[in-house]
Amino acid sequence: MSFQHIKWTGDELVLLDQRILPIRESYRRVKTSVEAANAIKTMVVRGAPAIGIVAAFGLVLAIKGALKRKRVLKEEFAEAYKILAGTRPTAVNLFYALERVRNVFERICDRSPEEVLFRVEKEALDILEEDVKNNRAIGKNGVRFVRSGFSILTHCNAGALATGGYGTALGVIRMAVEKGKKVHVYVDETRPFLQGARLTAWELQKEGIPCTLITDNMAGYLMAQGKVDMVIVGADRIAANGDVANKIGTYSLAVLAKQHKIPFYVAAPTSTIDMSVKSGKQIPIEERDAGEVTNLMGTRIAPHGVNVYNPAFDVTPSRFVSAIITEKGVVTSPYGAGLKKLFS
Amino acid sequence: MSFQHIKWTGDELVLLDQRILPIRESYRRVKTSVEAANAIKTMVVRGAPAIGIVAAFGLVLAIKGALKRKRVLKEEFAEAYKILAGTRPTAVNLFYALERVRNVFERICDRSPEEVLFRVEKEALDILEEDVKNNRAIGKNGVRFVRSGFSILTHCNAGALATGGYGTALGVIRMAVEKGKKVHVYVDETRPFLQGARLTAWELQKEGIPCTLITDNMAGYLMAQGKVDMVIVGADRIAANGDVANKIGTYSLAVLAKQHKIPFYVAAPTSTIDMSVKSGKQIPIEERDAGEVTNLMGTRIAPHGVNVYNPAFDVTPSRFVSAIITEKGVVTSPYGAGLKKLFS
Repeated sequence: MSFQHIKWTGDELVLLDQRILPIRESYRRVKTSVEAANAIKTMVVRGAPAIGIVAAFGLVLAIKGALKRKRVLKEEFAEAYKILAGTRPTAVNLFYALERVRNVFERICDRSPEEVLFRVEKEALDILEEDVKNNRAIGKNGVRFVRSGFSILTHCNAGALATGGYGTALGVIRMAVEKGKKVHVYVDETRPFLQGARLTAWELQKEGIPCTLITDNMAGYLMAQGKVDMVIVGADRIAANGDVANKIGTYSLAVLAKQHKIPFYVAAPTSTIDMSVKSGKQIPIEERDAGEVTNLMGTRIAPHGVNVYNPAFDVTPSRFVSAIITEKGVVTSPYGAGLKKLFS
Repeated sequence: MSFQHIKWTGDELVLLDQRILPIRESYRRVKTSVEAANAIKTMVVRGAPAIGIVAAFGLVLAIKGALKRKRVLKEEFAEAYKILAGTRPTAVNLFYALERVRNVFERICDRSPEEVLFRVEKEALDILEEDVKNNRAIGKNGVRFVRSGFSILTHCNAGALATGGYGTALGVIRMAVEKGKKVHVYVDETRPFLQGARLTAWELQKEGIPCTLITDNMAGYLMAQGKVDMVIVGADRIAANGDVANKIGTYSLAVLAKQHKIPFYVAAPTSTIDMSVKSGKQIPIEERDAGEVTNLMGTRIAPHGVNVYNPAFDVTPSRFVSAIITEKGVVTSPYGAGLKKLFS
C-alpha cells in the first residue's frame, strides 16, 4: 500500500485526516486519549475497524499520560475508557477493541507501570496487525465471488482507510486484482460525508483500479441497465441473525440489488459480529449533526433553519444479504446457525 | 405565491437564477434567444414545464431581435428554434412549447411583423398562464390521495420553480395544505444538482409547509421505519405506456416504495406525455458534465481525474407507478388505454 493512515510511533498516533481528503494529505498527531476520542468523534478517522484500532491506542495514550503525570493508573484508564466508548455508538469494533485492551489491563494492572504499558501497547499493536491480516483473509475468502470482467458497486469506504489496511469490501476487490482478475468499480459518493467520492475513489485511483464515481441515487438506474454484476459493502455491526448495520444507503442498495437479482455481499471481520444482539432492530443507530447535510466542505447548500434528519447508518435485514464474508469463512443463510459456528 | 421566477416584461425575460438559490435570490435578464437557450442549458432555469415556457419566450425574443436588426423573420425563427430545441433532450415539454409557438408562427408568418410578434408573444403568454392553471387542476385532482397527517416524500423540485407557478408534485401538496390537511414533507436533497436541498426546501420554507431534508440514500431507511405515507414526484417525459422519465433517483425511490407498499404518484401536465414514444426505453436520457458530481457549489469533493457517470434522469417503468395525476384527470393501470383516453 502506498499510504499508512494509522501510524503508532511509540509515543503518539499519527492519523491521516480523512475529513480533508482528497484535497490534501494532511496528518494529525494524537498525543492523548481525549485527542484520540475527538479524532473518532469528528471523523478524522472513521470506518468500524479503524476506530477500534484508534480507540485501543487511545487507552495506551491514557496509560502513558498517567505515568508521565504520576496519576493513578486505574482511574485514568477507566476515565479514558469511558470517553472513548462514548464517541460513536453503532460500530461494535470500537467496543471489541476497547474490551480487548481492558481485559489485558485488568489482568496485569497491579504489576510495574512499565510492564502494564508494554503489555497494553502490545495488545493495541496486535489489534492493528491482526486487522490487516484478517482483511487479507477476507479478500481470499471473498475473491471466489468476483469474476473477471465484473462491474462491482460499493458504498461508503470499506477500504484501507476504514481499517488497519487493505480493507474489507475493497480488500476483496484488491485480492481479485492481485489474482489477475479485471474488475471495474462503481463508487457511490455516499452522502452526507462523501466517503465514496473522497476516500474510496482516492484509494482506488492510488492503486490504479478502474472506477467510476456516481451519486448514490444513480445505483438503481445502473442496475436496471445491467451495468452492475455484484454489490459489496463493509459493516459496522452484524447482529446474531445476520442483520447488517452499515453506512446509511446500504439498505436501499440491498433492496435494489434484490429487485435486479444482483448478489449483495457484506465483507467484515468477525470483530464486527455482535452475538449479544439478536437482530438489527436492537443495534443503536447514531444520528449526526444537521450540518453534515446542510453544508458541504464548508459550503452551505440548503436554506438556513431547515429541519434535517441525519442517521449515519441503516440496518439491512439478512434476507437481502447473499453472503457475509469474514476472515474465518463465508456465511450464507441461515445466518443464525452460520454465524454461531464461526465462534465455536 | 411569494415569488415570481419567470417574468416577461414585454421586452425581456427576468429569471430567478436557480443555480444560486438558496444562498441568494438573484435575477438574470434574458434579452435574446441565445441567452434563453443558455439559461436552459446551464440550469439558471430547470424543470420540464419551466424550460418549455422559457423556450417559448426565447422564440419571441428571436422575432423581436429580427425586427430590430431587420433580419429575415423565417430564418431567424428557424435558427432560434434549432438552438432552443438543442438545449436539453429529455423533457418533452420543451418540444411541446416550441412546437406550439412554431405552429402559430407558421400560420401567420407572412402577415405584418407587428402582428407576427403580437400573436407569438400571446402564445408564449398563454403557455405560461395555462401551465399555472393546469398545476392548480393537478393539485385538485391529486389532493384526494393526501390524508391529513401524512408524511410525503418528494424528489428533486417539482414545485413553482419547475413550472410557471404552483408546481406539479408540490402543487398537490400545496392544494392539500390549502384544503386544511396537515402534512409533513420529506425532501430528498437530489444530488448532483441539489434541487431538493436548494429549491424544494426553500419553496416549502417560504410557504411554511413543515419539511425535513434528507440525503437521497436515506429514503429507503425512512420507508423501512414506516415514516413515509406516500411518494410524489414530477416528470420530464411520460411514454405512451406510462413509463416515466424523471430526475435521476426517481426509479430507485419507486422500487423502494413498492417494496414497502407505499403509493408512488407522478404529477404532471399532459404536455409531459409523449404519445409518440411507446415506452421509456425510447426516451433519450441526457448525460451531464462530470463537474456536477465532482464539484459542489464550486468546492471540489472528489479526486482529480476520476471517471464520472452523470445521467440527469432515469426511467421508472409504469408498473411501479400507482397513478399519474394530470390536469385532465387521474390515470391508473392499464396506462396505455388510460393515457390515450386523456387525449381523445
